[in-house]
Amino acid sequence: MKVAVVMGSKSDWPVMKAACDTLAQFNIEYDVKVLSAHRTPDALQSWVKNLRDKGFAAVIAAAGGAAHLAGVVAAFTTLPVIGVPIKGAAFEGLDSLLSMVQMPPGIPVATVAVNGAKNAALLAIEIIAVFDTNVKSQLDTFRKEQADNVLSVTLD
Amino acid sequence: MKVAVVMGSKSDWPVMKAACDTLAQFNIEYDVKVLSAHRTPDALQSWVKNLRDKGFAAVIAAAGGAAHLAGVVAAFTTLPVIGVPIKGAAFEGLDSLLSMVQMPPGIPVATVAVNGAKNAALLAIEIIAVFDTNVKSQLDTFRKEQADNVLSVTLD
Amino acid sequence: MKVAVVMGSKSDWPVMKAACDTLAQFNIEYDVKVLSAHRTPDALQSWVKNLRDKGFAAVIAAAGGAAHLAGVVAAFTTLPVIGVPIKGAAFEGLDSLLSMVQMPPGIPVATVAVNGAKNAALLAIEIIAVFDTNVKSQLDTFRKEQADNVLSVTLD
Amino acid sequence: MKVAVVMGSKSDWPVMKAACDTLAQFNIEYDVKVLSAHRTPDALQSWVKNLRDKGFAAVIAAAGGAAHLAGVVAAFTTLPVIGVPIKGAAFEGLDSLLSMVQMPPGIPVATVAVNGAKNAALLAIEIIAVFDTNVKSQLDTFRKEQADNVLSVTLD
Amino acid sequence: MKVAVVMGSKSDWPVMKAACDTLAQFNIEYDVKVLSAHRTPDALQSWVKNLRDKGFAAVIAAAGGAAHLAGVVAAFTTLPVIGVPIKGAAFEGLDSLLSMVQMPPGIPVATVAVNGAKNAALLAIEIIAVFDTNVKSQLDTFRKEQADNVLSVTLD
Amino acid sequence: MKVAVVMGSKSDWPVMKAACDTLAQFNIEYDVKVLSAHRTPDALQSWVKNLRDKGFAAVIAAAGGAAHLAGVVAAFTTLPVIGVPIKGAAFEGLDSLLSMVQMPPGIPVATVAVNGAKNAALLAIEIIAVFDTNVKSQLDTFRKEQADNVLSVTLD
Amino acid sequence: MKVAVVMGSKSDWPVMKAACDTLAQFNIEYDVKVLSAHRTPDALQSWVKNLRDKGFAAVIAAAGGAAHLAGVVAAFTTLPVIGVPIKGAAFEGLDSLLSMVQMPPGIPVATVAVNGAKNAALLAIEIIAVFDTNVKSQLDTFRKEQADNVLSVTLD
Amino acid sequence: MKVAVVMGSKSDWPVMKAACDTLAQFNIEYDVKVLSAHRTPDALQSWVKNLRDKGFAAVIAAAGGAAHLAGVVAAFTTLPVIGVPIKGAAFEGLDSLLSMVQMPPGIPVATVAVNGAKNAALLAIEIIAVFDTNVKSQLDTFRKEQADNVLSVTLD
Repeated sequence: MKVAVVMGSKSDWPVMKAACDTLAQFNIEYDVKVLSAHRTPDALQSWVKNLRDKGFAAVIAAAGGAAHLAGVVAAFTTLPVIGVPIKGAAFEGLDSLLSMVQMPPGIPVATVAVNGAKNAALLAIEIIAVFDTNVKSQLDTFRKEQADNVLSVTLD
Repeated sequence: MKVAVVMGSKSDWPVMKAACDTLAQFNIEYDVKVLSAHRTPDALQSWVKNLRDKGFAAVIAAAGGAAHLAGVVAAFTTLPVIGVPIKGAAFEGLDSLLSMVQMPPGIPVATVAVNGAKNAALLAIEIIAVFDTNVKSQLDTFRKEQADNVLSVTLD
Repeated sequence: MKVAVVMGSKSDWPVMKAACDTLAQFNIEYDVKVLSAHRTPDALQSWVKNLRDKGFAAVIAAAGGAAHLAGVVAAFTTLPVIGVPIKGAAFEGLDSLLSMVQMPPGIPVATVAVNGAKNAALLAIEIIAVFDTNVKSQLDTFRKEQADNVLSVTLD
Repeated sequence: MKVAVVMGSKSDWPVMKAACDTLAQFNIEYDVKVLSAHRTPDALQSWVKNLRDKGFAAVIAAAGGAAHLAGVVAAFTTLPVIGVPIKGAAFEGLDSLLSMVQMPPGIPVATVAVNGAKNAALLAIEIIAVFDTNVKSQLDTFRKEQADNVLSVTLD
Repeated sequence: MKVAVVMGSKSDWPVMKAACDTLAQFNIEYDVKVLSAHRTPDALQSWVKNLRDKGFAAVIAAAGGAAHLAGVVAAFTTLPVIGVPIKGAAFEGLDSLLSMVQMPPGIPVATVAVNGAKNAALLAIEIIAVFDTNVKSQLDTFRKEQADNVLSVTLD
Repeated sequence: MKVAVVMGSKSDWPVMKAACDTLAQFNIEYDVKVLSAHRTPDALQSWVKNLRDKGFAAVIAAAGGAAHLAGVVAAFTTLPVIGVPIKGAAFEGLDSLLSMVQMPPGIPVATVAVNGAKNAALLAIEIIAVFDTNVKSQLDTFRKEQADNVLSVTLD
Repeated sequence: MKVAVVMGSKSDWPVMKAACDTLAQFNIEYDVKVLSAHRTPDALQSWVKNLRDKGFAAVIAAAGGAAHLAGVVAAFTTLPVIGVPIKGAAFEGLDSLLSMVQMPPGIPVATVAVNGAKNAALLAIEIIAVFDTNVKSQLDTFRKEQADNVLSVTLD
Repeated sequence: MKVAVVMGSKSDWPVMKAACDTLAQFNIEYDVKVLSAHRTPDALQSWVKNLRDKGFAAVIAAAGGAAHLAGVVAAFTTLPVIGVPIKGAAFEGLDSLLSMVQMPPGIPVATVAVNGAKNAALLAIEIIAVFDTNVKSQLDTFRKEQADNVLSVTLD
């Protein structure tokens, strides 16, 4: 299954590249787009509405400031939507975090840390792994290597 | 000209009634609706897209939490959109304020104070008064009476 | 598939009951526990480590204050972990939100709104619906009814 | 109709230039001034009181810190006043945002994002467009081009 | 010498009464007014401009929300202006505190704690005591009694 | 009369130099010291207790982080104490601001803006001007020149 | 060894009673006082300076608002000082927390949660247990019983 | 007795080196490790559980973001645990501070300032000094030299 990645502005790409890199590392196919909840609302909706039928398992949506993107995506699909609040020019990312995470009852967004692109990808991968034992095995290996990396740190 | 008032949930109505009361006080016609950016996105868009043609001069949009409503309304109209952040169950309204006010360049929302329903109405009235001398006169009278009320306060 | 629900204290139950009610509404089996990352760390780990083998698809973890529970759960499973920050006696839930959402790269927690128990359940249901068309259909019905409820609101 | 732009300090100009550029792009005449609510209160009042008679449709007021400028302008005119909170040396702009947006009932300020100079101009333009179909058409074109710009982004 | 006390709204009076009570306790004459920087700007200025000539040594100004009152008072007098941020309906008084304390270089406001009416009065009294040895003696007595009160507390 | 200036650390000096420069500009004599409420509590007390007798009219105290300096100074004198919260390595100065301004009833600190050294000096000067007509005249001239400087700004 | 407990105001007692109760539960002798860093600075110092000689192992200091108490205590002793930020009338305890925890390098305060009286006592007990195996055993029993209490919770 | 120092990531080392330097300055033996509550939970637990038996008197734990490390350490030992919140990429360290300090009743963490590595070491030293008169003497000397350093500052 595939993962869709969308961001509200090209300026989010330096952060979001880490999500795509992580998906690639697990050999998960992904589609990545720049679409804005405010500037291209129609194109966004068309894109979102077809994702499940095209074989996507989850959507990762990243935005900064009044970060409505993930919530608007979630309004048009029942796929799990993972939100990445992007740290912008003010408020240290608190504006994007609250805009994403404080969704009203009925339409959830799974929010990760400010600029947490890598964890957004890992969450999508964990969702796929619920039903895909191969991806589950890759996660086990990833966790083990991650632990080994921490344990091999030396301080000078 | 008329003013459209929309809120994301019936629970916003006790706050937003003050906006309608103020519009009525100035004899401004208004239409008031409950529509959600997340739960009724299609109905919201249909409603917004026709507002200008129906003779509306401005839209007042109120929401709490991840308050996307005003931003989503603004995405579908070039009428002035006035946002009222509603104080919800957490964060003292900071979540709704930041969600509304931190709009990206290109799509503005005119944000007023948390629970600032009356000022949202006054802002809509000021917009109409730019071109309507009768409404302008009413504003002058309103301001004068408002000042008189302050000046006549007695402290016990 | 089943959903595991864990909370750090019995005092979280009045909030978290909504998660269980929502799971029940979708006929999703769930297991609900009180376990603390700090006071019962060993019991928590034993419980977490067996969840996947017992047929659980996701874990919902709720905690307030220094809300470490979801992060500690995530450290011991590669199942998707959904965090519900509980509003406690100070900081309007900001402490629990930041403790949950700001996870380091490598171990994600899917965080929902402060006290967002219902959305945590819906997110777990969306994860199951990725592979279960029956649950997917239920979500479609739920969304439609939810929209109808908003559209039928009357203001007095 | 014209738009008045005022800022509390010359140091706001690098941010506020974007407002003037946007007004110019729409061929809206504007007047721009540095005037302080605290350091030049008399000059500010004289300037504000004549704006409507001189054909101005709205005032954009930008200030940082204890950003009283927009509120003080609004006290002396019933023209729509648009506030731009400027990010200063502390608090990431939160001080200016709250100083501007939390106006008491009776005197509204239409607040945009921290450093949101461009959106302040667009809001003024939307106000003029309520009654000016030519400006309305320009806004439609602007929105369309803006969408096209987003849709043509490529990620490398 | 006398102390002037002004508040932006009658609703500030329950808090500000403590300032007047403290001034009375020190036999300092005071004048107390409700005047708004936004709703009665002209009356406010007339009142402020004459304070020094009428024998006032300091002004205490209290306001909530976008608390511009103290700053506007300070713009029209070189008397020391003491600001009392009033806790309003949102943000726990942070909006009023930042609006008061973050004054730009050139026009100071001496800010005390949120709802700190008593300390505002004591500060005004300390200012008078700089040149009035009788008031200075009263302050010494006040401090001593205050210490005695703390030392005589019993815990049950 | 003289003004005492104290700061908690040498690192505050680049900010606080502006206070001394402003005092010098008004020909107000001042004494400046580095003394810490925590590291040199005894030396601080000895210094504070003699200030009034040595002809000081006010104390300016600057500190960052847990900025206890102004409060501790105020505990040992009934001279007006003016606090300057210094922006430190975290929290954008919010820690120092709240530590200074939130003094308990009975012991006031006159707090100015974060890094507001110049306004601290102006406040001390305003206090002296309450009883010194020469200093009062200097303040009038200062205000006029300050206004002229704003009015002569040109934007390019 | 004994533990000293001090609070800045009698109003802190309903919170701090839990610290004394916990010490009593472990049969640790304690002395409890109301002393203010600002209102009774001399009495506070005399009391603090003798604590070590009188057989105290640690000091617990509780205060709200500009919570200088713990820092001032720490300035006069090299005993471990444990700070309890008390939630006051504004800012949800953030003012007291930052005032306590952000101590400058050289004088530490061991800060616990807002209103965290019980944990302050447990920390003092842990300090004593470093060298007292009997207290260490009591802690083990306490932890075990605490875990059992969590594990025996039933949800209805 | 020895002090254990653990941090969640190698990136915390530039801050935490100051803790080790301070311990060395007092000739306190220490052990320093990188271990993560999330990425190496098992290795962390093994390490923590043996600390008391190996002669450690206290644990210093440093982490950023969702800083669960100190709390998880405290769950597995009754030694005093000192937490150092590390300032990360967002929120100015507020996330790590709240994650550390807001521990639930029953399991305390002694939290110091954001990036307060030196004070964490001093707190550990103060704990040892409760029972070790030699270390107590070193602290007296340290405090005296520290005061002398402040008193010898010259301002240019």
